[in-house]
Amino acid sequence: MAVIELLKEKNADFFLMHSGNVNFSYATKFKSSATMFYLIGIDGTDLLLLPEMELGRALRESRVKEIASFEKLGYEKKLKELGSPRKAIAEILVERLKEGRAKKVLIPNEFPAFLALELQKIFEVETIENPFYKLRAIKRAEELEKIKQNCSFLLKVFHKFYKRIKSNKKITCDLARRFLEKELFSYGLIAEDTICSTGKLSADPHELGKGKIEDHLLVDVFPRNLRTGYCADFTRTILIRENSEIEEMLKAVIEAQKKAISMLKDGVNGKDVHNAVKDCLKSHGYETRGGEGFIHSTGHGVGLEVHEEPRLSDVDVELKSGMVVTIEPGLYYRKIGGVRVEDLVVIKKDGCEILTPFESFLAVYNP
Amino acid sequence: MAVIELLKEKNADFFLMHSGNVNFSYATKFKSSATMFYLIGIDGTDLLLLPEMELGRALRESRVKEIASFEKLGYEKKLKELGSPRKAIAEILVERLKEGRAKKVLIPNEFPAFLALELQKIFEVETIENPFYKLRAIKRAEELEKIKQNCSFLLKVFHKFYKRIKSNKKITCDLARRFLEKELFSYGLIAEDTICSTGKLSADPHELGKGKIEDHLLVDVFPRNLRTGYCADFTRTILIRENSEIEEMLKAVIEAQKKAISMLKDGVNGKDVHNAVKDCLKSHGYETRGGEGFIHSTGHGVGLEVHEEPRLSDVDVELKSGMVVTIEPGLYYRKIGGVRVEDLVVIKKDGCEILTPFESFLAVYNP
Repeated sequence: MAVIELLKEKNADFFLMHSGNVNFSYATKFKSSATMFYLIGIDGTDLLLLPEMELGRALRESRVKEIASFEKLGYEKKLKELGSPRKAIAEILVERLKEGRAKKVLIPNEFPAFLALELQKIFEVETIENPFYKLRAIKRAEELEKIKQNCSFLLKVFHKFYKRIKSNKKITCDLARRFLEKELFSYGLIAEDTICSTGKLSADPHELGKGKIEDHLLVDVFPRNLRTGYCADFTRTILIRENSEIEEMLKAVIEAQKKAISMLKDGVNGKDVHNAVKDCLKSHGYETRGGEGFIHSTGHGVGLEVHEEPRLSDVDVELKSGMVVTIEPGLYYRKIGGVRVEDLVVIKKDGCEILTPFESFLAVYNP
Repeated sequence: MAVIELLKEKNADFFLMHSGNVNFSYATKFKSSATMFYLIGIDGTDLLLLPEMELGRALRESRVKEIASFEKLGYEKKLKELGSPRKAIAEILVERLKEGRAKKVLIPNEFPAFLALELQKIFEVETIENPFYKLRAIKRAEELEKIKQNCSFLLKVFHKFYKRIKSNKKITCDLARRFLEKELFSYGLIAEDTICSTGKLSADPHELGKGKIEDHLLVDVFPRNLRTGYCADFTRTILIRENSEIEEMLKAVIEAQKKAISMLKDGVNGKDVHNAVKDCLKSHGYETRGGEGFIHSTGHGVGLEVHEEPRLSDVDVELKSGMVVTIEPGLYYRKIGGVRVEDLVVIKKDGCEILTPFESFLAVYNP
């Protein structure tokens, strides 16, 4: 198991995770809004700590070997002594680690500072990138199936949406967003903050969009499946009225995306893909400076979170078979607006499979 | 402003918050999935730090006085030098704090450990409860209106649901959940993990429920409004077939809830309310031990999160006018099952207003 190897490598005794993030439910196969901890030890410890009221459900649902409640470990007495739930929990963690003769404890970078500083008083503490980020990046077959299902629903909805836009160009950004979100919900997909932006405001990549649709509509939809928890991510820029600057930008972005997708396969460096996108856009005369141009990364992993590992950016990262990533070049100029095209793909041994096959160049007029 | 007073009290120069939680968007009036920081200084600093690509949108939307991008503060150069986005960000924060002649920096308990340990190398660092938790607990008039709107939608849906259950007792837990979630969505409310549990499994308060509805149905629904971001929370236990044990438990829980609600007003200690609920249930012969009985707290605040401050539990907390809290006693026995009744109320000077007025004792037969 990856965590045990990490403990050996770091010469540490325990890895301690906290709840409140997707790594936790992925690692423990247990979901709750409660404060919980997951402890993995070089001595074989595999322990989920949680409030008594979650115990029965966790015993049925979680894959962790040993499950114990704070109450069983003296929470109530400690709460009375220390007067603070946080301090009582810290004390329980310290006692359990001492019992395991801990000297060095690994915690993820995002571990709560209060507890980190408490542990640091007694043990050697080292922050690490949570190994479950890397484990989550490569999808198992059943995870990939869930993402593919989302993509198939998403494309059905987008197909219906595009037909609607073609027949009614006077729709507002708000109505476009509601149409998409309502249709997606009928497939059990929750989309929130769906981007339907237009005009010059679309030069901000994350502008949600408002008002009447102007020359183009940038639609970025990233729903999560209510039942499976998995996400999808997809963007198209629809040309509504002729605007040669927007049209040229879109063509360059589509070419850059094609270039990136053609490079994808097991072993490729995500940074090289990102650089190829930058180069392609530059070769079309699109400079990036002063917060304009190609101002974000080329893509990111998608799974239980919309944004997860790996990132295709200025940082080296080896893309591996089974990773599901977006490829989403975009161009943004304040005096013109923004365009972006995004597909979701799964990396394969010798290439990649596009999970969101849909025409890239969309114009409701005859260009 | 509360934070400045806290800085004075703690003799500290800065309070530094990180994004990724509701306090951040509440404090800055800016929502993004990006890594961001909010810095408040005793010297008047009021600074939002974020990636360049969020700058334009933040300048339009955020209430923070000064907004700067990591890129402007040398992110790219630092990334090249240090090879890690996290370290580059840490360096930017350290430089900005040094510029402000920081000696002591306050961070919230849940601040990321990696950054906390980096800051601690250079400054005195103290973890505190994020003051925005307390600020969020008391709702402004427009926040209360948003919560009231949710409650009114929720009651409409529950009314329809209850009628449906009365006419069709053979519905499954899954179908009940889907009906509720679909109807809520038509009002713009997202409900997830809606509890529709039955039989002995309902002895776990957070069991979602599955299979045919047995003698009773515990429905706990806690939707969030897609547009406003505010939540609601509501629970009813519907008696489906006669079961005298469940019926008696429900009557005791309703009486305990009435008792609790009658105590609510500005200045009351939440712990006293919790103790009154415990006493009332005990007086009906319901003991709490071994993970059975009344095994959770009496209630919690509801706002931008379903669970927020204040908590009505074993810990002292002064309830104040304008706080919106649940009152949700329950009883859980593994050989019988669980019942719970939950209403949302707003604390007032001399009492409280129930935001979810709906009959508490619901039986589809004639009891």
